[in-house]
Amino acid sequence: MAKINVAILGATGMVGQQYIRLLDSHPWFEVLTLVGKKSAGKLYGEAVEWLGENDPPARIQKMEVEELVPQDFTGLLFSCLPSEAAREQEGSYANLYPIVSNTSAYRMEKDVPVLVPEINSSHLELIKRQRIERGWKGFIVTKPNCTTAGLVMSLKPLDDKYKVKRVIVTTMQAVSGAGFPGVPSLQIIDNIIPYIKDEEEKLVKETKKILGSLITNTVLDNPMLLAVSCNRVSVIDGHTEAVYLETEEEVDVEEAKVSMSAFKGLPQDLKLPSAPEQPIIVREGNDRPQVRRDRNAGTVPGMSVVVGRVRKGLDSRSLQYTLLSHNTIRGAAGNAILTAELLFKLGYLER
Amino acid sequence: MAKINVAILGATGMVGQQYIRLLDSHPWFEVLTLVGKKSAGKLYGEAVEWLGENDPPARIQKMEVEELVPQDFTGLLFSCLPSEAAREQEGSYANLYPIVSNTSAYRMEKDVPVLVPEINSSHLELIKRQRIERGWKGFIVTKPNCTTAGLVMSLKPLDDKYKVKRVIVTTMQAVSGAGFPGVPSLQIIDNIIPYIKDEEEKLVKETKKILGSLITNTVLDNPMLLAVSCNRVSVIDGHTEAVYLETEEEVDVEEAKVSMSAFKGLPQDLKLPSAPEQPIIVREGNDRPQVRRDRNAGTVPGMSVVVGRVRKGLDSRSLQYTLLSHNTIRGAAGNAILTAELLFKLGYLER
Amino acid sequence: MAKINVAILGATGMVGQQYIRLLDSHPWFEVLTLVGKKSAGKLYGEAVEWLGENDPPARIQKMEVEELVPQDFTGLLFSCLPSEAAREQEGSYANLYPIVSNTSAYRMEKDVPVLVPEINSSHLELIKRQRIERGWKGFIVTKPNCTTAGLVMSLKPLDDKYKVKRVIVTTMQAVSGAGFPGVPSLQIIDNIIPYIKDEEEKLVKETKKILGSLITNTVLDNPMLLAVSCNRVSVIDGHTEAVYLETEEEVDVEEAKVSMSAFKGLPQDLKLPSAPEQPIIVREGNDRPQVRRDRNAGTVPGMSVVVGRVRKGLDSRSLQYTLLSHNTIRGAAGNAILTAELLFKLGYLER
Amino acid sequence: MAKINVAILGATGMVGQQYIRLLDSHPWFEVLTLVGKKSAGKLYGEAVEWLGENDPPARIQKMEVEELVPQDFTGLLFSCLPSEAAREQEGSYANLYPIVSNTSAYRMEKDVPVLVPEINSSHLELIKRQRIERGWKGFIVTKPNCTTAGLVMSLKPLDDKYKVKRVIVTTMQAVSGAGFPGVPSLQIIDNIIPYIKDEEEKLVKETKKILGSLITNTVLDNPMLLAVSCNRVSVIDGHTEAVYLETEEEVDVEEAKVSMSAFKGLPQDLKLPSAPEQPIIVREGNDRPQVRRDRNAGTVPGMSVVVGRVRKGLDSRSLQYTLLSHNTIRGAAGNAILTAELLFKLGYLER
Repeated sequence: MAKINVAILGATGMVGQQYIRLLDSHPWFEVLTLVGKKSAGKLYGEAVEWLGENDPPARIQKMEVEELVPQDFTGLLFSCLPSEAAREQEGSYANLYPIVSNTSAYRMEKDVPVLVPEINSSHLELIKRQRIERGWKGFIVTKPNCTTAGLVMSLKPLDDKYKVKRVIVTTMQAVSGAGFPGVPSLQIIDNIIPYIKDEEEKLVKETKKILGSLITNTVLDNPMLLAVSCNRVSVIDGHTEAVYLETEEEVDVEEAKVSMSAFKGLPQDLKLPSAPEQPIIVREGNDRPQVRRDRNAGTVPGMSVVVGRVRKGLDSRSLQYTLLSHNTIRGAAGNAILTAELLFKLGYLER
Repeated sequence: MAKINVAILGATGMVGQQYIRLLDSHPWFEVLTLVGKKSAGKLYGEAVEWLGENDPPARIQKMEVEELVPQDFTGLLFSCLPSEAAREQEGSYANLYPIVSNTSAYRMEKDVPVLVPEINSSHLELIKRQRIERGWKGFIVTKPNCTTAGLVMSLKPLDDKYKVKRVIVTTMQAVSGAGFPGVPSLQIIDNIIPYIKDEEEKLVKETKKILGSLITNTVLDNPMLLAVSCNRVSVIDGHTEAVYLETEEEVDVEEAKVSMSAFKGLPQDLKLPSAPEQPIIVREGNDRPQVRRDRNAGTVPGMSVVVGRVRKGLDSRSLQYTLLSHNTIRGAAGNAILTAELLFKLGYLER
Repeated sequence: MAKINVAILGATGMVGQQYIRLLDSHPWFEVLTLVGKKSAGKLYGEAVEWLGENDPPARIQKMEVEELVPQDFTGLLFSCLPSEAAREQEGSYANLYPIVSNTSAYRMEKDVPVLVPEINSSHLELIKRQRIERGWKGFIVTKPNCTTAGLVMSLKPLDDKYKVKRVIVTTMQAVSGAGFPGVPSLQIIDNIIPYIKDEEEKLVKETKKILGSLITNTVLDNPMLLAVSCNRVSVIDGHTEAVYLETEEEVDVEEAKVSMSAFKGLPQDLKLPSAPEQPIIVREGNDRPQVRRDRNAGTVPGMSVVVGRVRKGLDSRSLQYTLLSHNTIRGAAGNAILTAELLFKLGYLER
Repeated sequence: MAKINVAILGATGMVGQQYIRLLDSHPWFEVLTLVGKKSAGKLYGEAVEWLGENDPPARIQKMEVEELVPQDFTGLLFSCLPSEAAREQEGSYANLYPIVSNTSAYRMEKDVPVLVPEINSSHLELIKRQRIERGWKGFIVTKPNCTTAGLVMSLKPLDDKYKVKRVIVTTMQAVSGAGFPGVPSLQIIDNIIPYIKDEEEKLVKETKKILGSLITNTVLDNPMLLAVSCNRVSVIDGHTEAVYLETEEEVDVEEAKVSMSAFKGLPQDLKLPSAPEQPIIVREGNDRPQVRRDRNAGTVPGMSVVVGRVRKGLDSRSLQYTLLSHNTIRGAAGNAILTAELLFKLGYLER
């Protein structure tokens, strides 16, 4: 099978780098084009401030960064442009190409799905509406904010089973979530920053949308209420979230754990290459999940959400737990690649 | 005025060191005796693994550590013994001396007050009961766990005004809270530990007791319910807590802030040396309180609780905020010294 | 005595903030004017991203930041402009004002002293030459790079006594040395960066100049040779330097320690307000100096260089030690203020 | 081929854990026995405070920890016992078994090799002497201190080519080098500890021995002189060392780089499973090696020493560079396993 061409918009940024790392030797996709405004004309190896281990793959280092997607490009775009640029550029590229986007620009549009492939693959129906209403030949599918990705995964089986009414969540987020250069070291050594701009609002809105139902081409928000406190802490990768929730039905702790452990979605059924065997890993042991030990747990490192300390809340219709989700993999490039794999398998990437 | 003699039990430990630092040049108290089992017979300067800036005060360095409080000692004991040792030793010393204790051994006894001097000075009435029932000439007053101290301070004015029904709190705690050697560096660099043994239970029980009412020599627990998640993060000093609470009365955010800012207690009225002008400092600005910037805020460094991000909860009978409290000062030695000052001023330390 | 007016160029930057902190209630100087290009027109309290504890002093918060030094200003300028801007602006202001500058723009000019007041106050003679050759009514005196300040202090008494021939030094530098936003947290958590641009060259050149002799209005570089490796580590404030040196004369370790401990300069003789009693504190104890415990040691916090682990080198004409110097105080604003105090006392600030 | 049985002495410690991780699915060795005094009788999964990612391999978790090597054991021992215990136990086990030891107990014995397989495989001749003089049927081969392993590797090709006379080295060492619990977090956040007990002496003695010549069954120390400063910094894994050296011959920088890059030893010739293609990787780029990016560089993660910033020293017979070596892999279990592979290939493990 010939691989599908991939162009990465914003290829030198931190998420762009993750795409390159994760797509290196991907069975279906091949990075053919690197787009970056500031680095246009330079070799990738010279333009990038590589943040991962070692260096970019040799082949990628020697590729020239382009200012725009070349006219003769055919294939799939992964966009991790800064929000402002994304609004305009993604809109214009969507006329030609399928786009899986990391940025928030189009996430809240009525006709754009925010996808966590295990949860709401049905929302891909919105693509049709996009094409009709906007006249696009391509389309835009987005992935949620890095903090949302882990939370919704853990909520999905619980909401299905117990109907979640209210969620109170405090996050402890990694510095990589702020991109590069991101958080100055002077502000994080021996410190916590108890606020991340726009993050709490995004977590609320996106969760309600992702867990919402698609009814006649419109996503009806899930009615659950969320109260959120976002904090930045001195951790490289991996967002930890302490969750308290209230439900309509009575909750049994052991049963809740089984629901989470057993949860699977379409990517597991279709055996997509980036689908972890278990989207949610429930750990026993009071001191887990721990960032450094658990952020790469499971069969596809960084793609499973790890849940621990599942315990009763203040009454029988409540539950508490702590979750850990890899913010640059499940929370960014990994989730987007899984989305693209799903799009391919479902025939959305046919030319 | 002659100063009151002070003996510190557990003087080489981390909290013991804080006592020494804070009592250096105290107007009323003078450290006369240092007690430590393992270091008995050594000079303090040689026995201690000093963790603060510079070195212990010169006078203290040259003092010999004693194994027990000498028979001819008269004065006040500050105890920061390990819990196991505390049970026995404090009980026996209480027959002779007033003890202000940092340890949890006696905290939950019916006749022992857990004191935050601004909040529940009335609980000192229990001392009488101790003396009658136990036949002690001295007494034991305890201070709460470091995590409790900050939380109860912030809750007190809100409970007075709105009657707090439920509290959901997630803590991000400093490594100094675990004492020395405490948390291995291998477990905290690039990591979070989502659990602290017994901490959540203590936070619940102590809060209910401190905010409880004294009725005929018995503390009636405050009926509020608390759900707690405790986390250890890479911070030296200063516990951050994200609080969500529900109340009986409707809450107005601005009014709640004023209630907290304006809150004062007996220590402020009596102008005790370690009493900060404001027990609670409410900050505007989304990104506060920040550990490094705010842990020493106010007129007595480390004694004020700093509250920020005060905002509405999910309905009109709820409130959210983030608080920061210095765990080794307000959460330990500082609160105990303030308690001793109050005891002195109220005549409990008369010989 | 009326205080001398001070204007700070680059007042919102990290070093500018240190000036404001250190000059708050200075006995001789009063901050009257805050200059900052990007923040011009805003109140300081709104413009600044304050990095220290608490907030800027209330009086300073309410001052408006100016774009340029106002025409009617009289007094002293402290400049901590970015290097590029400094070249032009300092040159033009020097026509009118005495300037004590933190930036490297003029440091290597033949007629500009790089001052560590304890070491080379005689170099202030160069001011005359500046005025004659450049026709300036004011003048520029610079302070060295933050890494140089600690090293030269420790070398001065050793060079005086043993004549230092070669120095091999490895630095472990704090992130605050890179300014703000400076080092991204992603690059320093669980990491070391083994290189700091231009730092090694500066350390060599400045050390040779500061320890050089003034002969007929020219500084003759000290002939010692230096080999330097600069590293950035995860520390907030305080540069540690491991020093190995070779000398012309035989070195006795105990005698070398005494020479360093006893070292004093003109600022000590003149009892300048920011002069520490001991410019060099020599510590016994194998595990010192330690950043967190020793960076504020001495009578004026941050102004003493702390030396430890003084020991023999590979032969009798060599010595090894480790030093710690507070990079934003002795290495920046503190050293500059001490310089200004010296200038005042020596009559250079007379109007 | 049947695998060789392996017993790990000190299996629950930090280095023991690395053995388990690295030997999981090793082609020649199979972990059959776990020995640990404190954990004897418990299942490994319950006894161990696992510090790596995820959990120990499932098979290992279920193994019971033994107090001693069982009488019927045949095979190879890897020892990472605490030094005191090692002296006695290793000596007694050596009567029966081949032992590759991490501990320093026997390192400096005249008849015991300290092996870095690429450098001094010839020293294995000493095993004969051990057997004759001590009457052992087994033997002891040790690996050097974690700090030595990286340094000697970089020195070997330079000493061969230029004859190294003097080395001045400053280390910045990871906390994992101190074992577990090791360095308290209170002593490393925002701090550097400029001293590691016995480390500097070990680095000197071991380097001279490893680079020494075997002459009639005795290792003649290499005559080079070393001056060392060891520092502990806030890094998880990976020791960085800033090296300055003086040589007998003139050094050409580019040639020196080639010598290091091209350096190979017997493990490479024999294609041992744990032998990296390049024992030394020389990097261009001023800001390398960086701990987080380079500690796992090369074909066998953690086994290559990464060298960067190779540059001239103060004269033509000197050189400077910075090296990074993974302290728990090349500096501990990895080097020991490579040694065992060499022993096997050379016939020392035949029964």
